[in-house]
Amino acid sequence: MSPDTQTATVRHLSDHIGESVVLRGWLAKKRSSGKIGFLQLRDGSGVVQAVASRAELSEEGWAAVEAVSQESTLEVTGVVKEDKRAPAGVELQLSELRILHLTEDYPITPKEHGTAFLMEHRHLWLRSTRQRAALRVRSEVVQAIRDFFYQRDFVNIDSPILTPAACEGTSTLFATDYFGEPAYLSQSGQLYLEPAAAAFGKVYCFGPTFRAEKSKTRRHLTEFWMVEPEVAFMEFDGLCDLAEEFICSLVARVLDRCAEQLKELDRDTSALERVVPPFPRVHYDDAVKLLNEKGHAIEHGADFGAEHETVLAAEHDRPVMVHRYPAAVKAFYMQPDPVNASLALALDILAPEGYGEIIGGSQRIHDHDLLLERIHQHDLPVEAFQWYLDIRKYGTFPHSGFGMGLERFVSWMCGLSHLREAIPYPRLLNKIYP
Amino acid sequence: MSPDTQTATVRHLSDHIGESVVLRGWLAKKRSSGKIGFLQLRDGSGVVQAVASRAELSEEGWAAVEAVSQESTLEVTGVVKEDKRAPAGVELQLSELRILHLTEDYPITPKEHGTAFLMEHRHLWLRSTRQRAALRVRSEVVQAIRDFFYQRDFVNIDSPILTPAACEGTSTLFATDYFGEPAYLSQSGQLYLEPAAAAFGKVYCFGPTFRAEKSKTRRHLTEFWMVEPEVAFMEFDGLCDLAEEFICSLVARVLDRCAEQLKELDRDTSALERVVPPFPRVHYDDAVKLLNEKGHAIEHGADFGAEHETVLAAEHDRPVMVHRYPAAVKAFYMQPDPVNASLALALDILAPEGYGEIIGGSQRIHDHDLLLERIHQHDLPVEAFQWYLDIRKYGTFPHSGFGMGLERFVSWMCGLSHLREAIPYPRLLNKIYP
Repeated sequence: MSPDTQTATVRHLSDHIGESVVLRGWLAKKRSSGKIGFLQLRDGSGVVQAVASRAELSEEGWAAVEAVSQESTLEVTGVVKEDKRAPAGVELQLSELRILHLTEDYPITPKEHGTAFLMEHRHLWLRSTRQRAALRVRSEVVQAIRDFFYQRDFVNIDSPILTPAACEGTSTLFATDYFGEPAYLSQSGQLYLEPAAAAFGKVYCFGPTFRAEKSKTRRHLTEFWMVEPEVAFMEFDGLCDLAEEFICSLVARVLDRCAEQLKELDRDTSALERVVPPFPRVHYDDAVKLLNEKGHAIEHGADFGAEHETVLAAEHDRPVMVHRYPAAVKAFYMQPDPVNASLALALDILAPEGYGEIIGGSQRIHDHDLLLERIHQHDLPVEAFQWYLDIRKYGTFPHSGFGMGLERFVSWMCGLSHLREAIPYPRLLNKIYP
Repeated sequence: MSPDTQTATVRHLSDHIGESVVLRGWLAKKRSSGKIGFLQLRDGSGVVQAVASRAELSEEGWAAVEAVSQESTLEVTGVVKEDKRAPAGVELQLSELRILHLTEDYPITPKEHGTAFLMEHRHLWLRSTRQRAALRVRSEVVQAIRDFFYQRDFVNIDSPILTPAACEGTSTLFATDYFGEPAYLSQSGQLYLEPAAAAFGKVYCFGPTFRAEKSKTRRHLTEFWMVEPEVAFMEFDGLCDLAEEFICSLVARVLDRCAEQLKELDRDTSALERVVPPFPRVHYDDAVKLLNEKGHAIEHGADFGAEHETVLAAEHDRPVMVHRYPAAVKAFYMQPDPVNASLALALDILAPEGYGEIIGGSQRIHDHDLLLERIHQHDLPVEAFQWYLDIRKYGTFPHSGFGMGLERFVSWMCGLSHLREAIPYPRLLNKIYP
């Protein structure tokens, strides 16, 4: 390595045109003609083509070009050349190549593999182009969510994972022994956010949540990340506005900063560009009418299934907000609609293109006695909810919030058909390795 | 409410000097003389003094001033007046006051309460000045951590919580039944980050981790948040530099953006201002010598206890980096020191002022056969670590990382004597409510 050679990353190579640099990374692909070799080198920040010419390399260097195999670790030295046709805008003309570790029999070859095989090799599958693209989008979305709330003066409140009681029923909970007492893994941080809203006004949590559901669909994970804001004195219309602003902000950020990844995923970005306000807002009553007109025999009062959501979403080219669901099909803590107490001030946002529900939210009951009545009606243990009732006893206040599942949002952005590719290590029914 | 009156927040009141605004919030404190009342109003964004003059209020308005009790919810209208003596720089001259909800017998009064009582009322204790200050610092630190890694092109990789095997022994794990198989709550995301480092180069995770430790100290929580970066091709010196830069960046951010909170916590900020590079770097051998000189009978080869850490940290006015610990007292995956294979390329950072270990990290073993040998030596099940070994089989690479416990860092920043105040809902031995 010559003294003026510096260690670089693929992402910043275009700052070094004409210079000699050192790169370390993995061989993604290789073509060689006997005199010239084209190596796709991946270093984590990106992929660059390195051109190895037999005439310009030492004998050992060329032997290494011939010997190097997929996913071997390499250290290369070369001059950065501008190449407008290349995705990175540059390529490398090699002067040295050293194999740091020669890989034999890498399990994931360029041929097609079954999903079960890829899932068993998730720790290696992460290196593949589509997986890297989707998880980079996820990482960008995570930061965009944090920035959205930080810029709006929300306080991040981490809700606990280990909880003594269930938020919405116990049948889908993972249980553990907590020093002799039963404890459950949280399905939602909402109940813990509400007291914090009285301290900080605007709060949010963003962490893993758990559902021990025995369903094996492309829309379910047993462990997934959820972001939940909760705002004091915000009523239902404010909630709808916040959710709309949130979605639009995230989609714009993905379009702005993940263009390269969306291209690698062959994502139709025109569908995402249409995600601008205002979103259509459809009352539950009108949604039922529409479904009936379309030949679906759903009765007023019933909850929607995935097939109903698909029909409702297909009416629009952007997310649709369905509001004021029957109280009977929704959670115990939802505020009744003042116009019709059998309906709840509840909101679902359905993504377009068949991606289904991405947001669920509501205004919360802030009257102590009404909440207590609902806890009794739902056969929930009042003792366990004493602290939650306290928030209605000491300076109660109207408040609202929503939850968004990170993997559903990322799947929609990336055009993924299954949530399992939107999380680094998916946990599914009977699937916990690696 | 007059038509030119707008709803405001305490935080932004100084933008409205001379204007009439509406505020909603909670009564923190009250003094009243019969003719004039001074109300401390908290709205989540801050606290402001509202001055109520009997002469300027309606009869109902003044009756409300007399009736309103601590933690009642209020809506007030008033003119914003500049007041340089006030913490918020302004006060409110009230023209209207309405009680939205009158609180009776709020449990946390201005008198002293015992910790057990406050912990049982954590959902209300959150509203107290010191608790709000500490959790705002926590929220700022969370965003600072995210920004640090985002700005340096790290990819956020969420490690799973539900894991089939233990990272470092099973005695302190929470277990659950995962559809008939045993699963454990993760103690560290590191093992899952290492494969991702081969895909993205620089990665980090930041989420809850769990230790079912039966220790009841002020330095332990059973559930706490940990941030862990992992970097491909980064060796031990690079790791020490990264950790130092990380700590300095976070401390500077807290000093810059949490001045108000640190003041409320009576934090001596001069101790934090000294946290600048370079941190002293002390070899384990020298640390043992120093301890012996100070009269501690610790033998070479033994791990340090809390009392040793205190002695080592007290030698310096900033964090101290102790490096190259005996391999025998450290985790199985740590790279041996090339100079002395009985030592590991391990790093601990000890905070000043008795806050103890805040960072632990190491270079990882990247040689497959050496790692396999260590797995056998530690009696770990090879089958469970097959995927982890794969990372050394397919394009292995030197890499390093560290972990920092969020609550320990926040406690240090805030000068808290117990970790329980650095997390919204602390989980401790036998303590899981609310």
